[in-house]
Amino acid sequence: MAIRLGPNQYGKAEVRVVAVDRSSPRHTLVDLDVSSSLRGDFAAAHTAGDNAHVLATDTQKNTVFAFARDGVGSPEAFALRLARHFAGAYDWITGARVAVDSFGWDRIAVGGQPHEHAFRRDGGEVRTAVVTVDGDDAHVLAGLRDLVVLKTTGSEFRGFPRDRYTTLAETRERILATAVTARWRCTGTDLDWDATYDVVRTTLLETFAGTHSLALQQTLYAMGEAVLERCPDVAEVRLSLPNRHHVLQDLSAFGLDNPDVVYSAADRPYGLIEGTVLRDDVPPAEVAWLGTPGFC
Amino acid sequence: MAIRLGPNQYGKAEVRVVAVDRSSPRHTLVDLDVSSSLRGDFAAAHTAGDNAHVLATDTQKNTVFAFARDGVGSPEAFALRLARHFAGAYDWITGARVAVDSFGWDRIAVGGQPHEHAFRRDGGEVRTAVVTVDGDDAHVLAGLRDLVVLKTTGSEFRGFPRDRYTTLAETRERILATAVTARWRCTGTDLDWDATYDVVRTTLLETFAGTHSLALQQTLYAMGEAVLERCPDVAEVRLSLPNRHHVLQDLSAFGLDNPDVVYSAADRPYGLIEGTVLRDDVPPAEVAWLGTPGFC
Amino acid sequence: MAIRLGPNQYGKAEVRVVAVDRSSPRHTLVDLDVSSSLRGDFAAAHTAGDNAHVLATDTQKNTVFAFARDGVGSPEAFALRLARHFAGAYDWITGARVAVDSFGWDRIAVGGQPHEHAFRRDGGEVRTAVVTVDGDDAHVLAGLRDLVVLKTTGSEFRGFPRDRYTTLAETRERILATAVTARWRCTGTDLDWDATYDVVRTTLLETFAGTHSLALQQTLYAMGEAVLERCPDVAEVRLSLPNRHHVLQDLSAFGLDNPDVVYSAADRPYGLIEGTVLRDDVPPAEVAWLGTPGFC
Amino acid sequence: MAIRLGPNQYGKAEVRVVAVDRSSPRHTLVDLDVSSSLRGDFAAAHTAGDNAHVLATDTQKNTVFAFARDGVGSPEAFALRLARHFAGAYDWITGARVAVDSFGWDRIAVGGQPHEHAFRRDGGEVRTAVVTVDGDDAHVLAGLRDLVVLKTTGSEFRGFPRDRYTTLAETRERILATAVTARWRCTGTDLDWDATYDVVRTTLLETFAGTHSLALQQTLYAMGEAVLERCPDVAEVRLSLPNRHHVLQDLSAFGLDNPDVVYSAADRPYGLIEGTVLRDDVPPAEVAWLGTPGFC
Repeated sequence: MAIRLGPNQYGKAEVRVVAVDRSSPRHTLVDLDVSSSLRGDFAAAHTAGDNAHVLATDTQKNTVFAFARDGVGSPEAFALRLARHFAGAYDWITGARVAVDSFGWDRIAVGGQPHEHAFRRDGGEVRTAVVTVDGDDAHVLAGLRDLVVLKTTGSEFRGFPRDRYTTLAETRERILATAVTARWRCTGTDLDWDATYDVVRTTLLETFAGTHSLALQQTLYAMGEAVLERCPDVAEVRLSLPNRHHVLQDLSAFGLDNPDVVYSAADRPYGLIEGTVLRDDVPPAEVAWLGTPGFC
Repeated sequence: MAIRLGPNQYGKAEVRVVAVDRSSPRHTLVDLDVSSSLRGDFAAAHTAGDNAHVLATDTQKNTVFAFARDGVGSPEAFALRLARHFAGAYDWITGARVAVDSFGWDRIAVGGQPHEHAFRRDGGEVRTAVVTVDGDDAHVLAGLRDLVVLKTTGSEFRGFPRDRYTTLAETRERILATAVTARWRCTGTDLDWDATYDVVRTTLLETFAGTHSLALQQTLYAMGEAVLERCPDVAEVRLSLPNRHHVLQDLSAFGLDNPDVVYSAADRPYGLIEGTVLRDDVPPAEVAWLGTPGFC
Repeated sequence: MAIRLGPNQYGKAEVRVVAVDRSSPRHTLVDLDVSSSLRGDFAAAHTAGDNAHVLATDTQKNTVFAFARDGVGSPEAFALRLARHFAGAYDWITGARVAVDSFGWDRIAVGGQPHEHAFRRDGGEVRTAVVTVDGDDAHVLAGLRDLVVLKTTGSEFRGFPRDRYTTLAETRERILATAVTARWRCTGTDLDWDATYDVVRTTLLETFAGTHSLALQQTLYAMGEAVLERCPDVAEVRLSLPNRHHVLQDLSAFGLDNPDVVYSAADRPYGLIEGTVLRDDVPPAEVAWLGTPGFC
Repeated sequence: MAIRLGPNQYGKAEVRVVAVDRSSPRHTLVDLDVSSSLRGDFAAAHTAGDNAHVLATDTQKNTVFAFARDGVGSPEAFALRLARHFAGAYDWITGARVAVDSFGWDRIAVGGQPHEHAFRRDGGEVRTAVVTVDGDDAHVLAGLRDLVVLKTTGSEFRGFPRDRYTTLAETRERILATAVTARWRCTGTDLDWDATYDVVRTTLLETFAGTHSLALQQTLYAMGEAVLERCPDVAEVRLSLPNRHHVLQDLSAFGLDNPDVVYSAADRPYGLIEGTVLRDDVPPAEVAWLGTPGFC
């Protein structure tokens, strides 16, 4: 019986870098959480404690800060720059994965005018980018998470099979709420990342709002399909949609009706719908998704 | 030696109620987290397990849902209604505290138009209300928490004493960032709560942005003072401001300067500045603050 | 109308200090989260941005690390030492509050023997200490939080009043579960803190286990009373007990009975029972509790 | 250009079931968090909102509670039973994944004797099981997470490459701390799960303690190798080890040395070391790992 090392990676997680552009009085800032992982030949570190191949995670952290000095740009571009640097640093490093969470800040309005250097964290969703360099290839997953949306009508759930353990009533009227995590794989590495992000985000929101939902699966597919229809540079979309149940409360014990007015927002358990929508004519790239939490 | 029961209260925490107004096709919703506590003569429950005085916490929960059937209105008004109901339910109940967290939802824009029944959670700050009924008196603390703000300039920290353990350098340029928790005690119980909230929130944001800060304490006082100046119905303001440190990174080891560009956002430890700003001519009301987390 | 500064304090929160005692091959370690707050005359900082009185929070952090160099001892003793230092540092500082969370580590057993320098975090409850120095007085609150306990039987809830909104059935058999937060005020500042802690913790656990509960209030009082009976140096105990509801599931739709076997553990809402048990013959000391979260 | 549905799954997440065995006065309990996902032909739900194939997530929840009525046994056995039921429920369901987190409870000691029906949550690590049924195959990943361990000595980090961005000093003495997530794939479905769990857990702990560490990678490999050596039924082990950095504080500014005594425990960023240790002679089974967070 032989025991051996299998797939492995290591890196520095959650480097919180904030960069300010002061080139005009109207400051801008980027606020990122950067995690890097290296892949390659690290066998000796595992089996013999020989670190000759181990670019220290502290060095990876330093690199993030140093690269931010030259300007960050979009999360996707910054991740590409870092991943290519790490993957090209030594010949035993064959790949790198850099994941970036980007937190948005809005300008505070003072007297109706956006302030030049005071900001409010927009709080809600997080923009994400995951870049994987694998040998000579580079893959970009753009994305977002924690985009919480809700419809007060336009959602049904009927026609499901009933087995011995089924008690759920069919409904033609329910609240539909979810926290969208979406990741979309792009076919190039030189896109206008900010413009693409805006189009995809808007498409996700508009499709959620505009789809009369017979199932959360249907909403998921419609969202992914709409993104692919509008964005030729997107090859596939993966969505993870927790179903944040809102339970219509029975108030009859108190002599009250409840015509779809009062709900209890439930924490756990929750439904979880995960799926992929993709183009037939684009080759798959599973390595792009390796190590990314959520459905894979 | 006599042992006895001291101050006590009990209730139901974190009832998550969502109410939808469908009276027009343009739906509205309120999304609340309601916690109630009752005060009074509950000695027998403690010393003898006699529950004759214990209005069950399950009943308190039911009451929240039932009251929402008639419409919720503002968080402050809903909390007042509930607290007065509980405090008046039985003669042994002498007081009630109802705390409400209110989560905001924005309409999703579709084709540039706000949708009638699809919403996005605005994600950031939480509006809060704490109502205390104490005998015949009712007190209202309006408030907010998790309002995260940042200034890229206009903040100094100098002139502090230096003892044996002081290593911090003085600075005329730093990032100032905090997550505002503010609570303001109102002198009436029949205000236009939504209008007051909007004025206070705007005042807090504008004052944070507009104050050249020599100390976070100074910013705190300016924020509280501005609220009192603009809002005659507010008697006092309490603020809790964690100092979310942003550490300018030393890049010199990499041959790079860092002219206030690249920062590391630190998690812990953090400064914590807490203070009260109040009017001299309004009687204090400590009972209004009893049990409210933060500085008291 | 005069606006003025009211009560205020500031400090450094969550300094995470770990100290190792290597004086024998059998190492020991303490793992603390220390937060300090200063009280006194800080008016000029608030109203004029004059920091001449502001001992920097960074200095407070440095002091924590420096003091740990000499050995930490018990959380209570370390907090006393720090609070007295801060309160005596300058004549404008009239008080200090130092709160310590202490995380426990057990030795890893190797071949049945406790290892000399390898540890496992015990994970569950946190030992707490809050010391308040106020002028010449020093007060110590020892305590713990997140001590999660459960009884599978020996808990009833009956005899409560039934109003229009009451639907809860009475029960002679339920699961009782809670996460204990307890704080006990000690009458001296020179106790054997570790021994006292062990006695109180054991007393809390044994009383929870041994009390046939007719109400969670009854359990709370019994726990506090037992501590006071066994510990002459404890003047009062404050307990906060969330009722972690376990809902017996109705399985009848599936042709199954459920004789107190299958429960759903609920997250929210939850009951919350808070109370004080104290000695009649000890003077109160509200300043000792100022700023401590939970019932006060 | 054709757009189509790719891989997808759906289910109910985080069903919190507690089951009590009262068959003797010495009660036992199991406390689980169960998540199920179904795989198969759900295309019509996605593309047409046709739910004829969608076994409701509410039904999945009911099934968990109903199955618990007959006794739960080990997490692995319960997950196997559920996954086989779901995968065999309808011919369009071709696979199921059931993930279980199991929370441990210790008996409270009263007068030195373990109580018959009062328990304390042990708080620390969580035992995990992930069962995947894929057609006729069933795979079991046993595991644990949040096992936090620390060594005060016996850890070095030297010999790593130094590039332009490297500033880290080499060290022969550091604190090594991590929170172990480990998952081990078993080659059978009829093991003594509790006994296997105990052996693996003990092996992980003893190996962490006993390994003089030159790199966290070395510790990781040693832990996985030891498990495989002691457990013939384990085919592969995957480990995710965050490096919880403890930074030796420089106290020289205060006139103090620091001979490996005082450390600051850092939150972020942190190193993250992930790796697989496996047997050469066992066929791989990637489907067993599909959808499991962490390195895959």
